[in-house]
Amino acid sequence: MTKLVQCIPNFSVGRDEVIIEGLADILRNSVGCTLLDYSADASHNRSVFTFVGSPEGAVNAAVALAKFAAEKIDMTAHSGEHPRMGATDVIPFVPVKNMTMDEAIEVAKTVAERIWNEVQVPIYLYEEAATADNRKNLATVRRGEFEGMAEKMQKKVWQPDFGDTAPHKTAGVTAVGARQPLIAFNVNLSTNNLDIANSIAKAVRGSSGGLKHVKGIGIYIEERDMAQVSMNLVNYEINPIYRVLELIRMEAARYGVAVIGTELIGLAPAKALISSAEHYLQIENFDFDKQVLENHLL
Amino acid sequence: MTKLVQCIPNFSVGRDEVIIEGLADILRNSVGCTLLDYSADASHNRSVFTFVGSPEGAVNAAVALAKFAAEKIDMTAHSGEHPRMGATDVIPFVPVKNMTMDEAIEVAKTVAERIWNEVQVPIYLYEEAATADNRKNLATVRRGEFEGMAEKMQKKVWQPDFGDTAPHKTAGVTAVGARQPLIAFNVNLSTNNLDIANSIAKAVRGSSGGLKHVKGIGIYIEERDMAQVSMNLVNYEINPIYRVLELIRMEAARYGVAVIGTELIGLAPAKALISSAEHYLQIENFDFDKQVLENHLL
Repeated sequence: MTKLVQCIPNFSVGRDEVIIEGLADILRNSVGCTLLDYSADASHNRSVFTFVGSPEGAVNAAVALAKFAAEKIDMTAHSGEHPRMGATDVIPFVPVKNMTMDEAIEVAKTVAERIWNEVQVPIYLYEEAATADNRKNLATVRRGEFEGMAEKMQKKVWQPDFGDTAPHKTAGVTAVGARQPLIAFNVNLSTNNLDIANSIAKAVRGSSGGLKHVKGIGIYIEERDMAQVSMNLVNYEINPIYRVLELIRMEAARYGVAVIGTELIGLAPAKALISSAEHYLQIENFDFDKQVLENHLL
Repeated sequence: MTKLVQCIPNFSVGRDEVIIEGLADILRNSVGCTLLDYSADASHNRSVFTFVGSPEGAVNAAVALAKFAAEKIDMTAHSGEHPRMGATDVIPFVPVKNMTMDEAIEVAKTVAERIWNEVQVPIYLYEEAATADNRKNLATVRRGEFEGMAEKMQKKVWQPDFGDTAPHKTAGVTAVGARQPLIAFNVNLSTNNLDIANSIAKAVRGSSGGLKHVKGIGIYIEERDMAQVSMNLVNYEINPIYRVLELIRMEAARYGVAVIGTELIGLAPAKALISSAEHYLQIENFDFDKQVLENHLL
């Protein structure tokens, strides 16, 4: 049984095509892994790559990417809307096929150790790979961003998991972790009122008492003069997509606002979508593993 | 690229465990194909097997099944609720991976020729493999059933595609064809009134002017004292599941009847379910091939 791990590294480069294509080429030319998708955002000045590979192939590719990023990206000259602390900002691994979470954590630790040894960028392990509770949440790890890391890392509680207690001078610090598949799901509203989107996000997200595994904020989309609830669903089995959407629809109705559409960003596992089909179609005794043809072909 | 064809042969045996397990064993022991599922129904006196395989593996398995069925099943002693004309009643092939419909038709024709040559059971080609318009619909081909075949086959218009113009004395006639994936989908109603289920089925199915690719009847389910609309969706891209369900829900509401649940029988392609998720979740610009993780792993 071939093991496959997914990796979704984020880099602090979103405007320099040469560097972005250089990163893509590393994945195109790596043995034992396949580039599935990549995109760059100029206002965030950030790019995201999605690839899958064997554990060994993914480790080699992730280290090669981090090395290239450290050589090409200078964080002292970086600005952008998205929080960031390193040239290679974050490298999450997701077990996708014949892999346990423990095996994905091992992959993350191997990558973390090798990046410190070979690129001299200090590493925090996060999410499932975290070595302390306060390191689980990426936003907490990254707080202070690149500019604040030199001071933050001096604190004993923020000593990195691998490397010195000071950031790499130009490449900063990288978070490496393992996590469940995450679904980026946005709900578009029939209003341009950002306050309404924020109120709904607050009602729905776990951090303010809503659904535990939903992260979300209200944002204003200028191109469409529209407010949106922008979310990460970090556990689609406990908080399925349909429940998140219908909760938002119900909250929005209180303002006379409708859901005019939604956006699925990047990839989602078939099961996450099919569990919503199962709900709306009211299918009795549905068995995902047995009844979906493709599960027999993988 | 490995070619995979799906095959869903139906046999006129539903009560004799020894014969049913004998058929299953043929598939378990065949080279180049995998048994996915099988079930037998005593009142229908019929069993259905689902397997996938290489074109060559599927041909060999289908012929071996037909040979075994002709040896073990005597149609002169067969009775059951489901229409049938042969020991091996029908063998449909469905292209599922790296296969075109034309290639599935070739598989069907090879199987048809070999069954006649090796088992002496005459064959009608049906659906996409049909050699005339009146042979496309299986119900039309099978009309008259086993007992009426000797007379029917004398007519020039019903000369078989392979074999003599008389049925095999004990094994009858077999239909072999190629088709798109079919979804068996039943909608359970909050009433035990069969007339209501029949009225709804009539409104929805193609043969009485409803959705073209929906076949359906009302049936009464004794175990649950409940009426049901029982359907085959023969083209889920043109008539998607959600549209069929919501049309039934709307028609049922006219009688004050609700949909209390649905049943998906056997296997369905991921795309058929995900297209319903896409609808209910209102996902904008969804790209099935790119956005479903598993499509990159197949």
